[in-house]
Amino acid sequence: MKYGARNQLQGKITSIKKGDVMCQVKLEIPSDSTMNSVMTVESLEDLGIKEGDNVKVIVKAINVLLVKE
Amino acid sequence: MKYGARNQLQGKITSIKKGDVMCQVKLEIPSDSTMNSVMTVESLEDLGIKEGDNVKVIVKAINVLLVKE
Amino acid sequence: MKYGARNQLQGKITSIKKGDVMCQVKLEIPSDSTMNSVMTVESLEDLGIKEGDNVKVIVKAINVLLVKE
Amino acid sequence: MKYGARNQLQGKITSIKKGDVMCQVKLEIPSDSTMNSVMTVESLEDLGIKEGDNVKVIVKAINVLLVKE
Amino acid sequence: MKYGARNQLQGKITSIKKGDVMCQVKLEIPSDSTMNSVMTVESLEDLGIKEGDNVKVIVKAINVLLVKE
Amino acid sequence: MKYGARNQLQGKITSIKKGDVMCQVKLEIPSDSTMNSVMTVESLEDLGIKEGDNVKVIVKAINVLLVKE
Repeated sequence: MKYGARNQLQGKITSIKKGDVMCQVKLEIPSDSTMNSVMTVESLEDLGIKEGDNVKVIVKAINVLLVKE
Repeated sequence: MKYGARNQLQGKITSIKKGDVMCQVKLEIPSDSTMNSVMTVESLEDLGIKEGDNVKVIVKAINVLLVKE
Repeated sequence: MKYGARNQLQGKITSIKKGDVMCQVKLEIPSDSTMNSVMTVESLEDLGIKEGDNVKVIVKAINVLLVKE
Repeated sequence: MKYGARNQLQGKITSIKKGDVMCQVKLEIPSDSTMNSVMTVESLEDLGIKEGDNVKVIVKAINVLLVKE
Repeated sequence: MKYGARNQLQGKITSIKKGDVMCQVKLEIPSDSTMNSVMTVESLEDLGIKEGDNVKVIVKAINVLLVKE
Repeated sequence: MKYGARNQLQGKITSIKKGDVMCQVKLEIPSDSTMNSVMTVESLEDLGIKEGDNVKVIVKAINVLLVKE
């Protein structure tokens, strides 16, 4: 299984908040950082994921914004 | 300084590859994971970043894809 | 403060519509144009913004679509 | 002609920088602000645009990041 | 009418699911494949589309992820 | 294998154009339509794909723009 994206992390789901059309999934990635994914509720149901599940976290490099504070 | 995005990590730049229009920046985030950002060369020059610099890494949650392998 | 994005405008918030997971923020940019941002309600609360506030509006150039009518 | 996107501005092309695969187009929008679009060179050629042309500038609201400085 | 995007398909709307802020539109593209678009409810109302209508489906190539299974 | 995205098509690679940082991959999807994906050259090399290979084409619904002509 190979993904055409530069960012690939392992995440563990810590919470899921379902709305009417969209939902928000919180994940823990290594070193106790938190990440979030937003998708349709329909995608969530297709994924069939729940709290505690391990998932692959994919982000295309173009969607990563750098800021110099 | 507050960002309207759910994913905010600290990164340290490990390499920069410049193309004609676009460039690719590699970063190390906590726990030795690697991330990548693609932006215009012009944005890179405005940022004024180089290897070893610390930057904020921002990703909107909608751009995070989850995969259940 | 430097952003790795080619589009950076100043905006003033004119209205906020909160949904269950996502929200929509309307902004006025110079010359009376209107822009909109969609984010999670959680991001909105972290930003702590309200009508009348000034914010920076950031868009990566890759997300700008040109159409020749 | 109707677009399913919340951000629609009028722009006038001020410069085009062509790379091997991608290109960067600079635009002037009302009140002398500058915007940028990145697309494939192939898309640029299909658009058939050049400096001085007027184009529609479309951005989905989800791709607009707000920052409170 | 020319679009600065590499992916342009014809779609016919098969269903619309409206939420509070966002909505999800299902489309049939040639050869009975299904596609989905998520936008704000406000964009949907501006588009003025309903089941059975034909629309143009536009996706910038950068937003297309390839996976080798 | 499950993806948290509403658009999942099967594609066959018809050509690859490599630039310095980015590359463009053309695909044929069912019913002779053409699609394109842009990614980093590095991602292409990791994928290890070539003309004639079959790949999964993934697009999040939020990145699909509808236009009513």
